[in-house]
Amino acid sequence: MNAPRKSEPLYVRVANAVEELIRSGTLRPGERVPSVRRASRQHDVSVSTVVEAYIALENRGLIEGRPKSGFFVRSQFADARKVGRGTKPKTEGQIVAVGNLLSRLFDAARMPDVVPFGAAYPGTEVLPVSKLSRITAAVVRRDGAQSVGYDMPPGSEALRRQVAKRSLEWGTTLTPDEIITTCGGTEALALALRAVTKSGDVVAVESPTYFGILQLLEDLGLRALEIPMHPQTGMDLDALEAGIKRGRVAACLAVPNFSNPLGSLMPDDHKRQLWEILRAKGVPLIEDDINGDLSHDGLRPRVVQSHDTDGLVLLCGSYSKTLAPGYRVGWIAPGRFYARVKALKLTSTLATASLPQLAVAEFLANGGYDHHLRALRRLFADQVHRTREAIGAHFSKGTRVSNPAGGFVLWVELSGTVSALKLHERALLDHISIAPGPMFSATQQFPNFIRINCGHPWTDRREQALEQLGSLTRKLAQRSR
Amino acid sequence: MNAPRKSEPLYVRVANAVEELIRSGTLRPGERVPSVRRASRQHDVSVSTVVEAYIALENRGLIEGRPKSGFFVRSQFADARKVGRGTKPKTEGQIVAVGNLLSRLFDAARMPDVVPFGAAYPGTEVLPVSKLSRITAAVVRRDGAQSVGYDMPPGSEALRRQVAKRSLEWGTTLTPDEIITTCGGTEALALALRAVTKSGDVVAVESPTYFGILQLLEDLGLRALEIPMHPQTGMDLDALEAGIKRGRVAACLAVPNFSNPLGSLMPDDHKRQLWEILRAKGVPLIEDDINGDLSHDGLRPRVVQSHDTDGLVLLCGSYSKTLAPGYRVGWIAPGRFYARVKALKLTSTLATASLPQLAVAEFLANGGYDHHLRALRRLFADQVHRTREAIGAHFSKGTRVSNPAGGFVLWVELSGTVSALKLHERALLDHISIAPGPMFSATQQFPNFIRINCGHPWTDRREQALEQLGSLTRKLAQRSR
Repeated sequence: MNAPRKSEPLYVRVANAVEELIRSGTLRPGERVPSVRRASRQHDVSVSTVVEAYIALENRGLIEGRPKSGFFVRSQFADARKVGRGTKPKTEGQIVAVGNLLSRLFDAARMPDVVPFGAAYPGTEVLPVSKLSRITAAVVRRDGAQSVGYDMPPGSEALRRQVAKRSLEWGTTLTPDEIITTCGGTEALALALRAVTKSGDVVAVESPTYFGILQLLEDLGLRALEIPMHPQTGMDLDALEAGIKRGRVAACLAVPNFSNPLGSLMPDDHKRQLWEILRAKGVPLIEDDINGDLSHDGLRPRVVQSHDTDGLVLLCGSYSKTLAPGYRVGWIAPGRFYARVKALKLTSTLATASLPQLAVAEFLANGGYDHHLRALRRLFADQVHRTREAIGAHFSKGTRVSNPAGGFVLWVELSGTVSALKLHERALLDHISIAPGPMFSATQQFPNFIRINCGHPWTDRREQALEQLGSLTRKLAQRSR
Repeated sequence: MNAPRKSEPLYVRVANAVEELIRSGTLRPGERVPSVRRASRQHDVSVSTVVEAYIALENRGLIEGRPKSGFFVRSQFADARKVGRGTKPKTEGQIVAVGNLLSRLFDAARMPDVVPFGAAYPGTEVLPVSKLSRITAAVVRRDGAQSVGYDMPPGSEALRRQVAKRSLEWGTTLTPDEIITTCGGTEALALALRAVTKSGDVVAVESPTYFGILQLLEDLGLRALEIPMHPQTGMDLDALEAGIKRGRVAACLAVPNFSNPLGSLMPDDHKRQLWEILRAKGVPLIEDDINGDLSHDGLRPRVVQSHDTDGLVLLCGSYSKTLAPGYRVGWIAPGRFYARVKALKLTSTLATASLPQLAVAEFLANGGYDHHLRALRRLFADQVHRTREAIGAHFSKGTRVSNPAGGFVLWVELSGTVSALKLHERALLDHISIAPGPMFSATQQFPNFIRINCGHPWTDRREQALEQLGSLTRKLAQRSR
């Protein structure tokens, strides 16, 4: 399972070194970073490598280019590492009650003319609609009978083979036989949880975490042990270890690569440590790698599962964030829980729809998925960057915003005591959907946080909507004084 | 909700009258039924109406035409009404443990070169593969972006509108707003059960019933209260009423139209009575109408839900048996449990795949679904008839077989003490898959029953496989003596 990590490209090493200078305060907000020529000498690399590194840093939201002046450390935000800090998740397993916020959020996503900052999904404008549709039409004409017939679990072999092939990129070596296809990543998570827990069990989750996970825990009668998150490195492993020592934890569910909503990326040594902590107590890890392909710097991070020698990790993925949410094509590699997950799949949905699986498999094999991914990562990095800029411009001083390493959502801490729930209600009247912070916690923490989806192309309408949100926030702040 | 029942066509009334003569013993096996001319006078209808009636009776497996001799009451089987009788389901809620038979059955369905008498699904040869594929290709070319994007619950409006429109045929009047689309009928049943029960609850089910339902109960930690079935009229309502009076029953799950495996059709007065029994105690009914479109006589039976004035029925359907199993398109009209089902759908699979929904909606609107259904019903009636004939010819004397009014499965009681599980094991070695009787009961009843899928076109290979099954059965019978 432990395939060697590919060595990082030179430009990434340079970018990381400069990022460290910024993080440590050596380079301060507003300061000019070394010129390209100078950095080329300092790091003993070519000029073009430095340019690549600075573009990566720009994508990470750390520096910005100014015409004819060079690159500067960005200044308009407080240190993003502080976002999400200061929250003290309760340490006991919490009965989950996200209530009906989830339904309301997705209802809003169905409303016409709503600016969709709420649910985290990519706009179809950024997806390869024409190419995928052409492929799908060709597949259904060629394999009509196969499309109409059942594709019983474990599901399409063509798709499983493609997923297995790609797993080399994540530092692991899945075989097609280890994989079961699912109706999107949601079914993969639901099957994984049902396979390793029973009603009343405690599951360790990130805090903040994707509200769909909390709702799933609620629906399955599970309790959440909220583990604090570091905005850059993800789950606080000391807190996790302490939590596991305190009482029985049936499973841990984490999004190590580009968590939702924070966009954090767990470093490789943390990943190994996470696995060792869980292995010591025999706690299964449900690893949601749904954003793994969406790094902003173009590097595909490895999965925790790559360290797994015991089949203790249930690795879940999907093509909903990169290809086609509406195709509902996901997968799970459930390790030692394979038989149980396969059996549960039969009574959950019996089988995954055949045609979408065949079409995605064909796209992965011959559609230029990597080419598409490169463009998509850049696009998401750009959309995230522009949205951050607009928040900086239109929201009150003191607003803090996350600095995601991948994915396409931002986690925003509103200044003062503004209620995210009130802002959510008020913004909907103006046809703007946002995801309020309390949804991301089983204990309704994050009362003054919101998550902003950047999965749609940047437009004036979006800029105006952010301006409007900023204005609403200020009004609500005055009222609450 | 109570749309008036369409009056039966004349030929059906004639067929019913003749069936009654056979059922009551007035016409005995082997006897000639009245000639077409004579019956035309007796019933005061045209000759062609009688011919239609006799074809319907032939489809029901009750009479057979002999060249130049007329029609005769079929003789080779014991009275099919006896099939499934004499079983005494336990009266307490039973912890369900179908074990891994289900997985093994579906694994067999994936094996190449297996004669698929096991799982109950239609062969792609009987489905409108070309037409549906053409429609799907056209839809994906026309609505590519819509196909790629999410279609959040309640799901495709075009599909919900078509389902609602068709509900008039079932004696009810659903509106699109009452319907939620699902990933096949399986997800509809899973959501329905999860919406009205909690772990440990007792659910009244048919006995024998579809093993997928029993596995679902097991996976959800529910207990089965097995209600005996009458092979012609379905659930024994006295037994149901007594069961409900004895202890708390959280829900009743039934397949009133063409149950699986018996193929029984609950008469209209029983349907009303069923609803009244449940309503009196406030017990929700999960009505699985998956076979409702598959009557052998061409009449679309009404649904129990058509009597429901209280929103107590969760009506489930799908297009897996009539159009495309692999498209995974089902739906649920959950009555007063709408909000709960919609919320559960979000954490089960988030959304149903968009393209299959759009394609099925288009087929229902403009693809000639009714025309297809007419041919399919005749085909299934014919395949069921031929399979019955072959079982009569190749199995031991004393073998009894069901006489389904619709659908495409047969329920066979083997003579003597032959173990269906042993037969299942032995037949798989010969690449023949069957569904053994104990799978259809939470208490492993029906040890000497098997279910035979007739969803595939009749071929010599199938005939040979039935001959081989008959021969294996005789060998096993000798050994068990």
